[in-house]
Amino acid sequence: MPDPDPSPARWEPQGHTILARTRVFDLHSVRFRHPRRGTEKDFVVMRPPGWVNIIAVTPDHQLVLVRQFRFGVDDFTVEIPGGLMDPAESPLATATRELREETGFIGGAPRLLGTVDPNPAIQSNTCHIVLITGAQRRAEMEWDADEEIEVRLQPVDEVMAAARSGEIRHSLVLNALFLFEPVWAEMKARGI
Amino acid sequence: MPDPDPSPARWEPQGHTILARTRVFDLHSVRFRHPRRGTEKDFVVMRPPGWVNIIAVTPDHQLVLVRQFRFGVDDFTVEIPGGLMDPAESPLATATRELREETGFIGGAPRLLGTVDPNPAIQSNTCHIVLITGAQRRAEMEWDADEEIEVRLQPVDEVMAAARSGEIRHSLVLNALFLFEPVWAEMKARGI
Repeated sequence: MPDPDPSPARWEPQGHTILARTRVFDLHSVRFRHPRRGTEKDFVVMRPPGWVNIIAVTPDHQLVLVRQFRFGVDDFTVEIPGGLMDPAESPLATATRELREETGFIGGAPRLLGTVDPNPAIQSNTCHIVLITGAQRRAEMEWDADEEIEVRLQPVDEVMAAARSGEIRHSLVLNALFLFEPVWAEMKARGI
Repeated sequence: MPDPDPSPARWEPQGHTILARTRVFDLHSVRFRHPRRGTEKDFVVMRPPGWVNIIAVTPDHQLVLVRQFRFGVDDFTVEIPGGLMDPAESPLATATRELREETGFIGGAPRLLGTVDPNPAIQSNTCHIVLITGAQRRAEMEWDADEEIEVRLQPVDEVMAAARSGEIRHSLVLNALFLFEPVWAEMKARGI
């Protein structure tokens, strides 16, 4: 039946079935009902826990980076540290914990720079971006099983230039650097 | 067996099984072998086709935006136009096609602004960001089944401000605006 109203409708979720459960997300098939047409259709939705990525700056203006093998692209990447939120954990607590576990770095009070939706079309979770300044290596690393991480330090301005030049291609890392850019300009102007 | 070499290893893919096939991606379980430990483990990888997002600018400096219901976040979003690459289609051809099909807008020659990896940890594909200037509504829209799109125009500078303020949260849309920012500054300086 043709729908006389052309404006986008708010489809109504009717329940879901689980297509797959993995260590990092569940894959659901969600049945949605179109409110005007009355038709129903299944759409696939990835449901991961919340993600947190960390802009960690050392006292000498370097960014803490992690190099690791990534199974999705079957290659090495250089990224900022990050990880999955534990149940009931806040984004700021995740940031402090993941930075310490992945890199051994500890810094000052974490500050939320922003929150993004990794992929609203097919994915339900959000990714928080947290700034930690005064980061210094003061702890032992505690990697998860299968994690092998090389910690690198690189001047913040060099990393920003790599984001602008297309050298950094990780979508969520680019989001973090983009949101940090004006904060970093202000930090430099204030001589921090 | 402890691995004496602490540097990240390049795991070797050994083959995969298919966990799920959906309209927008396949979900694989890929067996990888650690070259030094000799151990094997399965990792989940999403394999979608290539994605293309389009920065479409009208002659009066407005950006072409699309408002639609998104099943992943179960809510409406305002995004830039975009879509999936057909097999053997180039990113530039996808951009011209998707802009016309989704919005009815046609512009000048498409130009690649950059390419990002949506999620190297769990996802194999890339997302291309393409600029089309001189965009004007000159065709009928041709939506895919279940697409309902409201086309909006908004001044480019307003959209850039919304990206900076946190109002726009879509990771890949933010990537596109971030990569377009210096190009837009140059276009304005040249009075285009």
